[in-house]
Amino acid sequence: MRKSIALFVDKGYSATSIQDIVDALSVTKGSFYYHYKSKEALLMDIHQQYIDELLTHQKAILQTDAAATDKLAEIVHLLIGDMEKQGPIANVYFRELRHLKEENAQVIRKKRAEFREQIEAVLAEGIGCGEFRRELNPKMIAFAVLGVTNWSYQWFQPGGDLSTTELAELYTDFILHGILPPQN
Amino acid sequence: MRKSIALFVDKGYSATSIQDIVDALSVTKGSFYYHYKSKEALLMDIHQQYIDELLTHQKAILQTDAAATDKLAEIVHLLIGDMEKQGPIANVYFRELRHLKEENAQVIRKKRAEFREQIEAVLAEGIGCGEFRRELNPKMIAFAVLGVTNWSYQWFQPGGDLSTTELAELYTDFILHGILPPQN
Repeated sequence: MRKSIALFVDKGYSATSIQDIVDALSVTKGSFYYHYKSKEALLMDIHQQYIDELLTHQKAILQTDAAATDKLAEIVHLLIGDMEKQGPIANVYFRELRHLKEENAQVIRKKRAEFREQIEAVLAEGIGCGEFRRELNPKMIAFAVLGVTNWSYQWFQPGGDLSTTELAELYTDFILHGILPPQN
Repeated sequence: MRKSIALFVDKGYSATSIQDIVDALSVTKGSFYYHYKSKEALLMDIHQQYIDELLTHQKAILQTDAAATDKLAEIVHLLIGDMEKQGPIANVYFRELRHLKEENAQVIRKKRAEFREQIEAVLAEGIGCGEFRRELNPKMIAFAVLGVTNWSYQWFQPGGDLSTTELAELYTDFILHGILPPQN
């Protein structure tokens, strides 16, 4: 899976053949089909693994009785924090969904929506109890939070001047200033 | 170009053949090659046209002597405002850069960087004159602004509950709260 992700990032899913994958691994096509029914099944597995791990971590954050502000900060750290490990897989995840079979794409879209709706729920909770500004639209802000974090996968190079933790802190600060009432 | 953009959005650039494009237009391959040397030349044209138009509009905004806050608001409106017209072309622009020849990709990457650096310059200007918070990292905030706006191309459906202008206002408000000093 790791090797095929690297190929998908580099050449794109469509332009990568099963032959390319087995060549890169110096194995036979037989070994590929031992693990995956098809190239699409492998792509689905990549999508599943990525979103399932995010949902599991998000659930752990939501189950605490922390303030909405802290939950949101944790979710931003979750999304940015493991870019080093998850960067390439996220790259495939954000780009290649349309190459899944419709039934598979639906499963993934539903899970993506769930992740986003949980962010929206944290925002609504914070707005409801006066932690965040009253006039916010939680649905649109949830998309904005995902925009800030997910976009960073497009350009951020782990190992540069800024660590992923520093970036997560910087973006938590930006997002919280964007939604906290002015007096804070 | 419009028809091929629709096909690229739907099937992806790699999976779309010149035959698909000419079939969709009920023309011959000859007419395609009359306009474009290759599929890649068409892709390059899409990329050029999109970024050149953004740079032209951005330049017009920067040439005014408005405050940094207002310039930034205008740039957010520029990016979100014409999503109705530019949505599909942006979709190709954000996804298919890697299918350009390296020399072409470099030209586009340079222009993208220029657009981003202009946002960074507006942020630095606002920080310098005390309009924006002193502790901000203008480079990282420029990426965050692009994250909020560019990500909206992934999910926003023009013609729904919220107009593109309302979305642009909502995100301008979010971004400005994120960077203005608390007392404002």
